[in-house]
Amino acid sequence: MPLSTDQQAEIDQARDGTQPTRRAVVPALEEILYQALPALDHGFVRVVDYMGDDAAVVQAARVSYGRGTKKVSEDRGLINYLMRHRHTTPFEMCEIKYHVKLPIFVARQWIRHRTANVNEYSGRYSILDNEFYVPRPEHLAAQSKANRQGRESVLAGKEAERVFDILKKDAELVYEHYLEMLNEGEDGAPLDPERSGLARELARMNLSLGFYTQWYWKTNLHNLMHFLSLRADAHAQYEIRVYADLMVDTLKRWTPICHDAFLEYRMGGASLSKTGLAAVKRMIAGEKVEQKSSGLNPREWRELMAVLGLG
Amino acid sequence: MPLSTDQQAEIDQARDGTQPTRRAVVPALEEILYQALPALDHGFVRVVDYMGDDAAVVQAARVSYGRGTKKVSEDRGLINYLMRHRHTTPFEMCEIKYHVKLPIFVARQWIRHRTANVNEYSGRYSILDNEFYVPRPEHLAAQSKANRQGRESVLAGKEAERVFDILKKDAELVYEHYLEMLNEGEDGAPLDPERSGLARELARMNLSLGFYTQWYWKTNLHNLMHFLSLRADAHAQYEIRVYADLMVDTLKRWTPICHDAFLEYRMGGASLSKTGLAAVKRMIAGEKVEQKSSGLNPREWRELMAVLGLG
Amino acid sequence: MPLSTDQQAEIDQARDGTQPTRRAVVPALEEILYQALPALDHGFVRVVDYMGDDAAVVQAARVSYGRGTKKVSEDRGLINYLMRHRHTTPFEMCEIKYHVKLPIFVARQWIRHRTANVNEYSGRYSILDNEFYVPRPEHLAAQSKANRQGRESVLAGKEAERVFDILKKDAELVYEHYLEMLNEGEDGAPLDPERSGLARELARMNLSLGFYTQWYWKTNLHNLMHFLSLRADAHAQYEIRVYADLMVDTLKRWTPICHDAFLEYRMGGASLSKTGLAAVKRMIAGEKVEQKSSGLNPREWRELMAVLGLG
Amino acid sequence: MPLSTDQQAEIDQARDGTQPTRRAVVPALEEILYQALPALDHGFVRVVDYMGDDAAVVQAARVSYGRGTKKVSEDRGLINYLMRHRHTTPFEMCEIKYHVKLPIFVARQWIRHRTANVNEYSGRYSILDNEFYVPRPEHLAAQSKANRQGRESVLAGKEAERVFDILKKDAELVYEHYLEMLNEGEDGAPLDPERSGLARELARMNLSLGFYTQWYWKTNLHNLMHFLSLRADAHAQYEIRVYADLMVDTLKRWTPICHDAFLEYRMGGASLSKTGLAAVKRMIAGEKVEQKSSGLNPREWRELMAVLGLG
Repeated sequence: MPLSTDQQAEIDQARDGTQPTRRAVVPALEEILYQALPALDHGFVRVVDYMGDDAAVVQAARVSYGRGTKKVSEDRGLINYLMRHRHTTPFEMCEIKYHVKLPIFVARQWIRHRTANVNEYSGRYSILDNEFYVPRPEHLAAQSKANRQGRESVLAGKEAERVFDILKKDAELVYEHYLEMLNEGEDGAPLDPERSGLARELARMNLSLGFYTQWYWKTNLHNLMHFLSLRADAHAQYEIRVYADLMVDTLKRWTPICHDAFLEYRMGGASLSKTGLAAVKRMIAGEKVEQKSSGLNPREWRELMAVLGLG
Repeated sequence: MPLSTDQQAEIDQARDGTQPTRRAVVPALEEILYQALPALDHGFVRVVDYMGDDAAVVQAARVSYGRGTKKVSEDRGLINYLMRHRHTTPFEMCEIKYHVKLPIFVARQWIRHRTANVNEYSGRYSILDNEFYVPRPEHLAAQSKANRQGRESVLAGKEAERVFDILKKDAELVYEHYLEMLNEGEDGAPLDPERSGLARELARMNLSLGFYTQWYWKTNLHNLMHFLSLRADAHAQYEIRVYADLMVDTLKRWTPICHDAFLEYRMGGASLSKTGLAAVKRMIAGEKVEQKSSGLNPREWRELMAVLGLG
Repeated sequence: MPLSTDQQAEIDQARDGTQPTRRAVVPALEEILYQALPALDHGFVRVVDYMGDDAAVVQAARVSYGRGTKKVSEDRGLINYLMRHRHTTPFEMCEIKYHVKLPIFVARQWIRHRTANVNEYSGRYSILDNEFYVPRPEHLAAQSKANRQGRESVLAGKEAERVFDILKKDAELVYEHYLEMLNEGEDGAPLDPERSGLARELARMNLSLGFYTQWYWKTNLHNLMHFLSLRADAHAQYEIRVYADLMVDTLKRWTPICHDAFLEYRMGGASLSKTGLAAVKRMIAGEKVEQKSSGLNPREWRELMAVLGLG
Repeated sequence: MPLSTDQQAEIDQARDGTQPTRRAVVPALEEILYQALPALDHGFVRVVDYMGDDAAVVQAARVSYGRGTKKVSEDRGLINYLMRHRHTTPFEMCEIKYHVKLPIFVARQWIRHRTANVNEYSGRYSILDNEFYVPRPEHLAAQSKANRQGRESVLAGKEAERVFDILKKDAELVYEHYLEMLNEGEDGAPLDPERSGLARELARMNLSLGFYTQWYWKTNLHNLMHFLSLRADAHAQYEIRVYADLMVDTLKRWTPICHDAFLEYRMGGASLSKTGLAAVKRMIAGEKVEQKSSGLNPREWRELMAVLGLG
């Protein structure tokens, strides 16, 4: 359960009641506004604000005065054109803000995308909660031997049990010691009135990377889609992909036409190298092309075969 | 008159009617939403969208779940603290989008601020309108002799007349030739059905820097205040300051508490150098400090005297 | 001739003599360092500084301590891998700085790429030179009727003559009036000692977009390649492509392995949409695919045929 | 000892021997190029590349053709002017690249500065070293009661001993378990040939925030000084200030004139609010100003008194 009763009450209150606005409104996104969409064992993604919609992309591309009277089909045609030809600036005219709760090792991967605004909960000022990530059995992957970055079949039996045991017990231990060094009980009262307690900015270093942190993360539609194209990809680490997948759903609610164009031209499409393209041309001409005659090295050849659904 | 009847009708339509939203709404800004605020002789600034309000800054600084139940006075205290100590990230959580019509030489100054999203009307695709800037007599400044960047007293009499005459006639001439090269009449019909017309992307180079362009310009609250601190400043060129001053007004409507903090800690405040601060300390101690004994060079000394309202 | 005798002497002096450094040095780039490579009728591109080389990309990808002892072939393999899989951050570790002289309308297109550092010659402080762009006859393109952004066959005969005449005479006229308003002769002396002269920041607005400006422009290798992929592309306006093509040459001298990867995976490659990829798969399987059965609209179909060198 | 013998050998090799370059060279920085400057118990900062010098700032501000023939005193005057009036773009024309080894909790603070290029050692691909931070006794600060972010007097006696014990033992424990889950010995051989080993990208989550990571970090001179103004400040956490202080030293070697201007106008200077400035003016006029009559709240008043060296 990611939320306390107080937190849920604050969210309910924020969702309760509406006000009139002259701005573009997206009912499908308003429906889930502020709601915590669960991710992993204790995390979530919440859309907390947004600006613009599909029409705002069109409006910016045309630098127009009004909301436009064009038909939806024309909007779709223009958005597809912009996406296909990488005219990215009109997509920068929409903005979205998320509140995300996520394990620190995921946050460290995420923050590498610098084109966003971030406010993170501070372990210098505040005490972090006792919540840490433990993978579910089906995600307890073994290290791939072929690919240094990859996972392979999951661990099982005694090995899996041992890993669960370590992750859980170590997290409990370091958190208990964190509170002891801070000289704080879970209720906030000093454990020992005689002691001072270590500075929060120091004590936090005893926590491990599986503990949850949270932040407000705001970005524009173009940068969001770039982030999602990398993090909703099959090569991304499972633990960040869970968040990206939820955000693809919010993208669909927010800007359905851009979402479709994103799937058509980014996620579902493919990039061919110069040599790969030459090989494809020969294949289309009916030639039988082999790796050796393709000019591609074995790894690139395998990647091309995978893209083409061959081999 | 900056707007055509069609444009005004599009704006009126956009302003007409509201929709319910769960997001933060700022009634004082909604009041002027989409309206063209006139600037210079043919330009304008329009707020076309916004996201967040004063409370959103507080919310991000606290990474909180709801809109918050704190009193306005506490919000003000926190915002002042953040501004004073240059904790800038919470201000990045609000976003605003403007539609601006402005002379090209102003646009070239403006675009140097890179931390914004921009979509400009394209002279490659479209034909630019016949609108150019001519200063009003009181802004027809002479070149300062003391300061290479500055203006001095205004030109008058025959010299002023001659300048007006040049600016107006040259602009009319280059625009007429622009249409001739394009082979287009003001009504869009070919001037001469026998001719092809020069490519738009080339013909535009005959237009001068006083012609108007327009763009959608979107930025966050932090970057907006940074832009305004430079461009609403007395040292900024008058023609860009006009726009910045209008935008300070929209800032006041949008986030009144941030606006007040901005005036208190940025626009109305002062930066002292190490040596300047030492001189101030001596003055407060009752010492009579002269430029020579201050350690400041004559120019810095004059700047300090100006800041302190002395000399 | 883009350079005055004084400017050429300054460049010769900068090129004259070397100093020892422990940093990575790229002799092929040092060869042309500071030299003005001519562009258009009065412009140029000069490499004025650089940091890093191909090995620096490898070094950053590995976060290694030394320059590395790996073979060049391994460096090439890793760089190709990084480029293919869009691991962009190692390419950000190299930096290059150019001095560019270019027409204002080209500068306005160029500056839309915000991920660079720029210092432009200021028309507020200084007087701009009397140099403007006039296309050569073979670049005097007519407006395309099919594509609003495109060029078609060149203008010829009387129409071409008239265009040259307008561009040249209007530029001469507005410059003469610029000096008259400034009250400055070409030699810098006041034209009329009785007059004040209009402020430089105002007088410049009479100049047209064909006049040359200049700037220092610095960016990292990743952003440079992104810029070049858009501006050395066949769809870019000829006048900016001239600069981009020269810069591709400097890229080849600077980081030859990255340059090759850039041609292989960016410039020479292709992006397929989801639907386009499905069509390609069917073609490879020997099916005869038509536009109608492809699921692509006519325009996308034409683009795909062009990519595949068909139709 | 932060470096292994192999690492030191790689550094020595990189330092060994020089090559001629036509670029600007800074001998004082070359002297320490590649050297690891120790920070905390296992960390370091190394300058691994740089581009430009003080003269490059001047050159960019002037958009000049050569290295310039101006005297050093004129360079200093211009640099001071640029710094004082926040003309920041010329400072962006110099670039520096560091290799830094630092505890993860420091890295997480550091990465909030997004205007830099970063390549971090990857715990997804590689196994992290068994090195973690333990504060020295004089830095074992107690939590401040007045200021949630601050430190107070250091812990001593049994409380200190207990903290050291926890930090050390917990780090050893989680690292041992990290290797166990990976099924790797310190020598890289599998601990148990029967087991698969948990994926690296998962196992790392058991490590705590005190463990060391490392990255290549590259930024321009303007952003470097902004970073240093915040992180070499007395309010910054001690553990990041150690790095910032070392980097201020490298700044002094690299661009001594900019360094001096940075100390004079940023680090050693002060910002006054509008109300604070009004109070200072009254003090200079000989008036006795109290907090209540100043218009400042008690906290702001204390901050002003501190700036002025009063009270």
